[in-house]
Amino acid sequence: MPSHRPVIDGARLRKTLDGINAFGHNPQTGGYNRQGFSDADMAVRRWFEDEARADGFKVRRDAAANVFVRYGPENSPCIMSGSHLDTVPEGGAFDGALGVAVAWEALRAMRDAGMTPKIAVEAVATAEEEGRFGGMLGSQAITGQVTRDWIEQAADASGETLVAAMRGQGLDPYAVLDAARPAGSIKAFVELHIEQGPVLEANGNPIGIAHSVSGVSYIAVRMEGRANHSGTTPMHLRADAFRGLTDVAVEIPNLIEKTGTDQSRITIGKVDLEPNFPHTIPGFAEFTVIIRDTDETVMRALTDAVKASIEAAARRHGLSHVTETKSWLVPVALDNRLAELLSEEAGAMGLAALPMPSGAGHDAQTMQSLCPSALIFVPSRNGISHAPEEWTDWSDIEKGAQLVLNALVRLSCETG
Amino acid sequence: MPSHRPVIDGARLRKTLDGINAFGHNPQTGGYNRQGFSDADMAVRRWFEDEARADGFKVRRDAAANVFVRYGPENSPCIMSGSHLDTVPEGGAFDGALGVAVAWEALRAMRDAGMTPKIAVEAVATAEEEGRFGGMLGSQAITGQVTRDWIEQAADASGETLVAAMRGQGLDPYAVLDAARPAGSIKAFVELHIEQGPVLEANGNPIGIAHSVSGVSYIAVRMEGRANHSGTTPMHLRADAFRGLTDVAVEIPNLIEKTGTDQSRITIGKVDLEPNFPHTIPGFAEFTVIIRDTDETVMRALTDAVKASIEAAARRHGLSHVTETKSWLVPVALDNRLAELLSEEAGAMGLAALPMPSGAGHDAQTMQSLCPSALIFVPSRNGISHAPEEWTDWSDIEKGAQLVLNALVRLSCETG
Repeated sequence: MPSHRPVIDGARLRKTLDGINAFGHNPQTGGYNRQGFSDADMAVRRWFEDEARADGFKVRRDAAANVFVRYGPENSPCIMSGSHLDTVPEGGAFDGALGVAVAWEALRAMRDAGMTPKIAVEAVATAEEEGRFGGMLGSQAITGQVTRDWIEQAADASGETLVAAMRGQGLDPYAVLDAARPAGSIKAFVELHIEQGPVLEANGNPIGIAHSVSGVSYIAVRMEGRANHSGTTPMHLRADAFRGLTDVAVEIPNLIEKTGTDQSRITIGKVDLEPNFPHTIPGFAEFTVIIRDTDETVMRALTDAVKASIEAAARRHGLSHVTETKSWLVPVALDNRLAELLSEEAGAMGLAALPMPSGAGHDAQTMQSLCPSALIFVPSRNGISHAPEEWTDWSDIEKGAQLVLNALVRLSCETG
Repeated sequence: MPSHRPVIDGARLRKTLDGINAFGHNPQTGGYNRQGFSDADMAVRRWFEDEARADGFKVRRDAAANVFVRYGPENSPCIMSGSHLDTVPEGGAFDGALGVAVAWEALRAMRDAGMTPKIAVEAVATAEEEGRFGGMLGSQAITGQVTRDWIEQAADASGETLVAAMRGQGLDPYAVLDAARPAGSIKAFVELHIEQGPVLEANGNPIGIAHSVSGVSYIAVRMEGRANHSGTTPMHLRADAFRGLTDVAVEIPNLIEKTGTDQSRITIGKVDLEPNFPHTIPGFAEFTVIIRDTDETVMRALTDAVKASIEAAARRHGLSHVTETKSWLVPVALDNRLAELLSEEAGAMGLAALPMPSGAGHDAQTMQSLCPSALIFVPSRNGISHAPEEWTDWSDIEKGAQLVLNALVRLSCETG
């Protein structure tokens, strides 16, 4: 029996997060650089393992460099919580790292309270979640979704292959194929992550509970007109590739109104004109369109509507165009019952938890293929993430951490 | 008295143009590179001087590297024709070079016909018209528009100063201040140039006669929003800098309809987004707006309307913005009587000459400050210029060259 109800130690949690963020910090920018399988990423994993071992926990690492810290019975299924330790280039202090620190803090709080769980709990620090190599390698390894073909083809934006990056760290990339955890060995997965969006802040909620993760339809478009002189070419004799793009961009709100939902997001994030000279009418416009929704049917309808809009804009401005589907990720529904359990626990704590979709991808969506999975959000100031300005207030972090702890206690100690 | 009416020798004209284009040719791209005060630019001037001298003409070069080939009485005013020998990087075969070749061919045709003009005629190959150093140095030197301040401040896009570039060619940049031709020393200036636009081709005219040169209002804009995650930021909580820009772009046709004329041209040619990642809402949009009209009042009204549209778009999308006026070039009216003379001569040749504005800048607009000046256009295939694909049919070139010749004969032999 526990000596007291376990409670998060905020100072200790903060110390863990600071410890993680001693790795990969760039003092010039304030950003963090622990890209998957970089030296800083490998170093932070060793540090995390050493800290957990020194504190008396059993630690294991798999072939994908996922680190597992375990508390409770040996050789039995577990409840798992955690997130990733890798970052995007010049990322923030909270993305991923916070979920790892919170999970380990939850284990320490249970131990300190003298709890002996019926089902073991594991804190996981997953590998390569940010997609340097185009996937979520760590959680995909755990859930058995990595294929030999993918390992052989994966490469980062600079052209370095996954195989070379892993071998450079003394790792065997093909061993990742054997890292899958068997079905039934993980009973549930709970991830805490920063929201990376402005919704909780705008609504005044300290906690969000994701019911689903949006799918992503990624289109790359190249429109071609004629790069003529801006002074000598009358407006009606132009074939301005940028005008084609702008017609597509301004149509987006109408497409969402007609075909989308409140969860729809359509973004033109990358635009490259040629020749991109002030005095020349753009001859080429290359751009990306990212279409997201939590409903795949809606996502498909929006994608078709965007393509029709591109077609119409090209015709209107005398342009030719090529549209390429770069990727299609289906939406994922997270576990309803686990989300309800979290809502109940939040309610018991007096927290107004907002049910919401996740617009970004997370390990929880991959884990859902293996076990019931849940995703807890804490607010991001100004919705900023993947940048040094990323911030979550410590009062919100402690609420979220306590919610993770309470959920893990309920799942590991109070259920059969 | 002439032995016969002088006639352009098309083969000889073509040989001159080919001779010029032996300099600065890039066989990889098909483009020509004779940027002002580059080695290729200086070499082509020496070649042109040598050719003209070898053919018996008097040749002079001024401190700005303008080359003058003269035919007719010494020490008297002249009628001048010509254009520039320098090119933009990877430019075409006709821009500038054709006007120089035609002017010299006209002198040779007059001489071969045994004509002795009352007023001398000069063929000029002007220097640095393409604005590597931000002006039209050659014709500005002839017309006394170069200042010491300007010489000291001028630099090209790579940061090389005019002073360094000229000294690197053994030239004294400050001597340019003394290169001005006295008032009255040039009676008229006639420039033949490729249209660089699609109007003559679209209308089926072999010849255009410019009545004016459009002014140019050049605005640089930076809009700032918030570079948030495209998946986690709902549409209504975005501050998308690109959406501000697109609202400005699609409003352009309406602004011209309300405030502009048939001569109005508004172009967004250069766009740079930050961070320019597919999955991130653009936080910054930098873009240029170039506004042209032949009427300065209209140009001002259009510029004000564009600025109001930027203001409104920024407010609509929650953006801040900075708008900077990079340059303001007033429209220039060319000489009416000289244009009429050219129209008459074209009519006498059975050519349907189109009166039109010039949307691009040319030496003729600078020369107009010193003497009556005219600008003859020959058609550009597909309106393309400043590119290896630049092309004008030889049948059109010969018509334009004969028109220049006939005009020079009339101005130098038949007037007092």
